[in-house]
Amino acid sequence: SMNPDLASERQTASFSVEKLTALLDGGAERTRMRRAVDKAIERDPVFNRENEYFQSQNERYEAAVRKAVRLQEMMHEMGWDENGPEFKYLYRAVAGDIVFLLHRVFMRSILVLGSDQQIAKWIPLAKQYQLIGSYAQTELGHGTYLQGLETTAVFDVTTQEFILNTPKVSAMKWWPGDMGRSATHSVVFAQLYVQGTCYGVHPFIVQIRSLQDHSLCPGVTAGDIGPKMNFEYLDNGFLMLQNVRVPRENMLSKFCEVQPDGTYVKSGSQKINYFTMTTVRVSLIADEVITPLMKACTIAIRYSVVRRQSKLKPGEQEAKILDYQTQQEKLLPQLAAAYAFHFINEYLQELYNRSYTEIQRKNFDTLPELHAFSSGFKAMVTQCSTSAVESCLRACGGHGYSSLSGLPSLYTKILASCIYEGENTILFLQTARFLFKCFMAARSGQSVPPSVAYLAAVKPGKCPAKKKFDFLSPDIYIEAYQHMAARLVSSTAAKLQDLIQSGVKKHDAWNQCTVQLVQAAKAHCHYITVKNFAETVAKLETQAGIQKIMKHLCDLFALHGIFSNAGAFLHDGYISGAQMDMVTASYLDLLPLIRKDAVPLVDAFDFTDKNLNSALGSYDGQVYQRLYEWAQKSPTNKQMSPAYEKYLKPLLHNRLSKL
Amino acid sequence: SMNPDLASERQTASFSVEKLTALLDGGAERTRMRRAVDKAIERDPVFNRENEYFQSQNERYEAAVRKAVRLQEMMHEMGWDENGPEFKYLYRAVAGDIVFLLHRVFMRSILVLGSDQQIAKWIPLAKQYQLIGSYAQTELGHGTYLQGLETTAVFDVTTQEFILNTPKVSAMKWWPGDMGRSATHSVVFAQLYVQGTCYGVHPFIVQIRSLQDHSLCPGVTAGDIGPKMNFEYLDNGFLMLQNVRVPRENMLSKFCEVQPDGTYVKSGSQKINYFTMTTVRVSLIADEVITPLMKACTIAIRYSVVRRQSKLKPGEQEAKILDYQTQQEKLLPQLAAAYAFHFINEYLQELYNRSYTEIQRKNFDTLPELHAFSSGFKAMVTQCSTSAVESCLRACGGHGYSSLSGLPSLYTKILASCIYEGENTILFLQTARFLFKCFMAARSGQSVPPSVAYLAAVKPGKCPAKKKFDFLSPDIYIEAYQHMAARLVSSTAAKLQDLIQSGVKKHDAWNQCTVQLVQAAKAHCHYITVKNFAETVAKLETQAGIQKIMKHLCDLFALHGIFSNAGAFLHDGYISGAQMDMVTASYLDLLPLIRKDAVPLVDAFDFTDKNLNSALGSYDGQVYQRLYEWAQKSPTNKQMSPAYEKYLKPLLHNRLSKL
Repeated sequence: SMNPDLASERQTASFSVEKLTALLDGGAERTRMRRAVDKAIERDPVFNRENEYFQSQNERYEAAVRKAVRLQEMMHEMGWDENGPEFKYLYRAVAGDIVFLLHRVFMRSILVLGSDQQIAKWIPLAKQYQLIGSYAQTELGHGTYLQGLETTAVFDVTTQEFILNTPKVSAMKWWPGDMGRSATHSVVFAQLYVQGTCYGVHPFIVQIRSLQDHSLCPGVTAGDIGPKMNFEYLDNGFLMLQNVRVPRENMLSKFCEVQPDGTYVKSGSQKINYFTMTTVRVSLIADEVITPLMKACTIAIRYSVVRRQSKLKPGEQEAKILDYQTQQEKLLPQLAAAYAFHFINEYLQELYNRSYTEIQRKNFDTLPELHAFSSGFKAMVTQCSTSAVESCLRACGGHGYSSLSGLPSLYTKILASCIYEGENTILFLQTARFLFKCFMAARSGQSVPPSVAYLAAVKPGKCPAKKKFDFLSPDIYIEAYQHMAARLVSSTAAKLQDLIQSGVKKHDAWNQCTVQLVQAAKAHCHYITVKNFAETVAKLETQAGIQKIMKHLCDLFALHGIFSNAGAFLHDGYISGAQMDMVTASYLDLLPLIRKDAVPLVDAFDFTDKNLNSALGSYDGQVYQRLYEWAQKSPTNKQMSPAYEKYLKPLLHNRLSKL
Repeated sequence: SMNPDLASERQTASFSVEKLTALLDGGAERTRMRRAVDKAIERDPVFNRENEYFQSQNERYEAAVRKAVRLQEMMHEMGWDENGPEFKYLYRAVAGDIVFLLHRVFMRSILVLGSDQQIAKWIPLAKQYQLIGSYAQTELGHGTYLQGLETTAVFDVTTQEFILNTPKVSAMKWWPGDMGRSATHSVVFAQLYVQGTCYGVHPFIVQIRSLQDHSLCPGVTAGDIGPKMNFEYLDNGFLMLQNVRVPRENMLSKFCEVQPDGTYVKSGSQKINYFTMTTVRVSLIADEVITPLMKACTIAIRYSVVRRQSKLKPGEQEAKILDYQTQQEKLLPQLAAAYAFHFINEYLQELYNRSYTEIQRKNFDTLPELHAFSSGFKAMVTQCSTSAVESCLRACGGHGYSSLSGLPSLYTKILASCIYEGENTILFLQTARFLFKCFMAARSGQSVPPSVAYLAAVKPGKCPAKKKFDFLSPDIYIEAYQHMAARLVSSTAAKLQDLIQSGVKKHDAWNQCTVQLVQAAKAHCHYITVKNFAETVAKLETQAGIQKIMKHLCDLFALHGIFSNAGAFLHDGYISGAQMDMVTASYLDLLPLIRKDAVPLVDAFDFTDKNLNSALGSYDGQVYQRLYEWAQKSPTNKQMSPAYEKYLKPLLHNRLSKL
């Protein structure tokens, strides 16, 4: 039965939930397809996640392998293809615990870095799972800084082989997924040596386990890196190589080759490598970041209208906790961020697609902008979403801390996205370097991409807002963000140049500006996100109900950003103290307004109960009943602990000294 | 062997690490005693934590019971007493996984709330572990708001018993520690009914399990609430009661009693109840919050001088990551916070002790201030420390995310401290209510406690600093914090009164100010912490080396707070934009200065390797070797997964369709 406190929230929706869902999906047809995929997955008991919160690392790995294998079979049955339209919904439907993602990275790296012969040889084997691939780049001692990798591959001209070695502990491959227990092959990155000369890091296909019995190949030491904060199902692995020989043909050679006589030959542009990293970064944002954030919002907001605690007014019934201003402030800005990030991700996808088209025409001009943008956005979106999920978890009090709420696993998983595929600080600094270059170029009259053209026109000024309602005008707040971002870029650029002119060496000067460069990069990304949200809202004129609530969310996202980062806007007086009070007033006024539609706004994300897998977040709001039912299934309730006979009984029976 | 990169950090310490350790411990004699306790615990294999990261919830519970029982035995052997000086070091030495903490809360609640007869009956039984107690207050449906509890206790005058019931699912006790699997008895809070009249929430001693065979007593349903984000070792439990009868004497009756004829009699002041909650809050800060923060700093900072990544200058060796400004900015403010919180905790302890003395003289005057302070401080310290530990974890990149780093468990544990013993937002609002009252009193000329006297003198003004060095003067920054806190309190008070005068009902008006009231309470706590740190530093004049580095840390703590909360200081122009640039410059200048002493500063926390239990944080810095050794012990490496025979082998051998 439906909890009446949750049911009543749905009766007053100011817009059509179904239409908003279709908007998020990109059309009603896609919604239909997504739901069909959800149904197919949820019908199959292999994909059941009922026991997920109770399983050990070993059990989860086994279940994840089972799911991955079953998924292959099912795709076959259903006629779904990896490049087909259903595929993107499968990962969302399975909701996490599944292996072979690195197998796909293995394939992609061969497709991008391999020669035509290499593609013809390896891709069919991989596609038919006659081997299982992994991708071994990161080492114990080196992550983002690829040049520092220490694994070696020495060309032996007499046998026409490369000899791969792990010369020291820190050179051991560490973290690659699917490698600890599953993979038979891996793309391994190593420093290439030919006749004593080092040519830098190159990729090699290396077999690591027997195709017959899965035993490790001679010279190979490999295993699982052990427990992590999340990803229990994934066999992140280690790999040590001792004089492992692979034929000359196993170096991926689209861009460079070692010829039989040992001659090293380069061919083509390596710029495409950047594009590969960008592809991964762009593709992970929706599934690994925005979806978990939307789930966390769904759980926390539904719970917050079911939970009643304390009284707002004496004599009344206890209030729904979402009626408290502080609870609204914990959750509604996160909800607004989920929408903001959904829309900026669409923007990024478009930028990516345009860039991809250009690259296929051998035009690499858009690559620096795409690289800088995708880096900064990845960093901003992962960081903000991680804090947002933490806020959702904490907003549910003790019950949010129970694994059964689903929030701890969402949090520990999204946290990893701040670290993998480029550490966020380094990514922000790449964006900052791009902004700095564009700023200098723009200042000297050169042309720059349109998204950074605003950097050319940094000038002092004052925000024209006169009353709090003015801050509900996108022109006003977009201008404020733009001014703030431009000021941070220009003032940091000035500091950098001052330092260099005063005799500090360039690299030291850069290091001394990095804290502020990161701030500037964040400000730029925040500005673009606000601007894009407002532009998206403006385009919704045919859907009045949806446009209205999206406008509120856009305003909330923008004003929350100003409110919680007030210093950056007040610093040069662009916004005055009195205006900041208006921002605060408008911001706080928006909270109860959006609160009315909070449940419909999360319903529109359209997660099934099985997909959420949360005792707090189910559609029917039967929170307490479900917590109790699920807890009873815990292995901690399956039997009396041996601790009783061994320790508690002797203690209670006063045989303390005899223990 | 010692990692040379870590060894070199210790050779240049600007102060005596041993003397700083003694200062933190409160004297060299206490350091000696603490180390003796560490040694005794670490010598005993029962307390070994080697496998902790690999164990299931069931295994950890069993180990924690074993440790608790062994600890009782050991205290007996060593002649240690619960009230003796060694006891406070035992919990730190055991480092977490141990049960019976709620057994102690059970005893304390009887000592505080029980009559002399009740104390005489129950305390000896509990002390000798002839029963195991728990403390059942929180229910599925109610946490901080005690008045809302739904468990009932109805007095039956004919049998002279109370009949306890759980009338609905949401009334089930949920979360009490030691209750899921260990406890035989519990103090249960329930709404007291006598002859149809409800007298509110009262505590009752209820037996829940047999003393003979540990089976549940008639009418009792109890068990474990299942997996949580941390505290796997603890049997947080649920409890449902169906017509469970306890004798009249089992209602704890120091302050109120039901007489045989059903007459309800109150006696004495109930204010002491506040004091109990305060005692728990004050006592948890050191062990559950500051110690984990110090550990996280130790791990992250040691790792950051061992890890080398990328180059600061071309042609040079790769740089220690702690030499990057951004890494310093992630870690050194957290280190400064660890010291700041250690010192403010000492201040709080003193305030508590003074208050305790007064209360024993039946003077309750200091109670409101103590309650308001301890609430706000608990909230501030837990919140800041949680973010700080997250920052440490993320600063270690991928390796920080491995459980073997120790950081995930420190984070997930400290996060709980934001939720338990009073949800932080509610605690901040209690502080805010006190500040608001004091502000109104001070404004109307009444006397207020000295710590809030500054609220009387809110006036516009400007910070007198003229150059960046001025911001290294405690007078300058303390004044800035004071001004900022007073402004937030007074402006929120003004908003509240405006709303009420404009006709908004008092409770609505309060709700509409809560976001800003929380800000004001935080600002007050931050101000007091900065002030106390500066005063502590001033008193260190006999220890020049230590005073100097503590002064740097105090400056860093203060300036980091202004830098990252700039809006609050810029808002009314007290600090100008130009002055904020000086703050930023001084703040950033402090980073490389403190970085030189970073390792000695964490060494001074004096954690043994076993206590840290971190592959990244050990004293010798052998990070990569240890990660590899520990990973090999993981159960994921103990045997080939059944997943191979079941799923991978058939897949690889191309029998996909036969699965």
